[in-house]
Amino acid sequence: MKFVRVSYAGQNYEATIHGDDVSFIEGDKYGSWRYTGEVRPLDQVRLLAPVEPKKVIGIGANYVAGVEERPEKIPDLPVFFLKPSSSVIGPEQDIEIPEPIEEVKFESELAVVIGKEAKNIAETDVYDYIFGYTIGNDVTAPQFFHEDGHWTVGKAFDTFTPLGPVVETDIRPEEVFVKADINGVETQNSPTSLMIVPLAPMIAYLSKVMTLHPGDVILTGSPLGAHFVKDQDIIECRIDDIGVLRNKAVRSSVSIES
Amino acid sequence: MKFVRVSYAGQNYEATIHGDDVSFIEGDKYGSWRYTGEVRPLDQVRLLAPVEPKKVIGIGANYVAGVEERPEKIPDLPVFFLKPSSSVIGPEQDIEIPEPIEEVKFESELAVVIGKEAKNIAETDVYDYIFGYTIGNDVTAPQFFHEDGHWTVGKAFDTFTPLGPVVETDIRPEEVFVKADINGVETQNSPTSLMIVPLAPMIAYLSKVMTLHPGDVILTGSPLGAHFVKDQDIIECRIDDIGVLRNKAVRSSVSIES
Repeated sequence: MKFVRVSYAGQNYEATIHGDDVSFIEGDKYGSWRYTGEVRPLDQVRLLAPVEPKKVIGIGANYVAGVEERPEKIPDLPVFFLKPSSSVIGPEQDIEIPEPIEEVKFESELAVVIGKEAKNIAETDVYDYIFGYTIGNDVTAPQFFHEDGHWTVGKAFDTFTPLGPVVETDIRPEEVFVKADINGVETQNSPTSLMIVPLAPMIAYLSKVMTLHPGDVILTGSPLGAHFVKDQDIIECRIDDIGVLRNKAVRSSVSIES
Repeated sequence: MKFVRVSYAGQNYEATIHGDDVSFIEGDKYGSWRYTGEVRPLDQVRLLAPVEPKKVIGIGANYVAGVEERPEKIPDLPVFFLKPSSSVIGPEQDIEIPEPIEEVKFESELAVVIGKEAKNIAETDVYDYIFGYTIGNDVTAPQFFHEDGHWTVGKAFDTFTPLGPVVETDIRPEEVFVKADINGVETQNSPTSLMIVPLAPMIAYLSKVMTLHPGDVILTGSPLGAHFVKDQDIIECRIDDIGVLRNKAVRSSVSIES
């Protein structure tokens, strides 16, 4: 099942996609919901970010180039970071490059959407707490990384977390390929089997630190091939069973210099 | 005016404090609200964290020991970090020390509560966007800081962001003293004039990076004197015009080791 959030006639709706149509739903998509009966052609609605996360958690440097490079043991303390919910945008919205910098990095990622409150869960139970999967673009301005290692500002700008186009509930996350095309040229294409910290230990660990809530998003890391993009570049993050998350980079009118 | 959130007879309410009473309110405390007419004695309600922030932003190492140590120029890129909203607790709730560690650091801080959506605001306009002030305890387990400098996990545990007891709208933030008592012994007591990055440039900078929303909390840094606390220690963070934020540290049943 593909869940979306859409804008139609000035209102926002939760919906599911069936072929070329969207069927509006009401209730709590993580709990009890039903169809309203309203159905619209997909090309008459605008897709929004498919979830409204309370928190967005990312993991740093989580892919190897090939299976032979996988460490024997996963790290005791992976590098996790938080992105503010204010950085989330949907498909086709512009990624704004703040003045005075001229380029930002894209990172195509498999994004996990939590479906049930999760605290201190076991690795073997992790999949019971996942609602579905979408695509995330962990846009980053490393020019704003602090020399002491802090990434917060460089990952927190408005528009730096495109999500979408849909939340797919029925994929096998360990069997998909995470891809990205820049201006039509493929620059990322790696199977999720090249993750250093796989989903189950990643989410079990996070749930020991903090309570995860329905709608929370975990960006599971980006394969090799991410690089800088500049004004007017088109970034298409792709996972075949989910879709294409397409955004354009543009210059922002906001300058970070005071 | 002192705004609170309280639990009474199993329900949560927004309210204001008048003497020894709380007066329940309805509506949006950041916008249009009115009294419901229901008034309860303060000692018959339980105070909750006074706000439900979408995001909690902290700033690192923001106090000097004396005015003579203030740098001539504030840093171009302060160290900011995000704490998840899942880490927020209210007064009198326990701070849980995760296994296997035995102590965590407290940090008493003046906490700014945003009142209006703020994007790219000027330093001279910052105070127009502030709703009020509360006290924050930026609890930290530096044992979980990453060797590469990332603080996220060490600051993200559930219960690691006590807030309260009230949001006071009428203080002069540049004239208050940030204090903390551990088991009744004063360990922090510094005026906010010893901040390296003062409120106006701090919040103006943040608003250039990310949109701030009503209820968002900015922890403005902790004075010298923060140290480790252990099981059963009582931490009282104090700012005289706001009140006392009192929490006990206890051992958690959750172990971060897998």
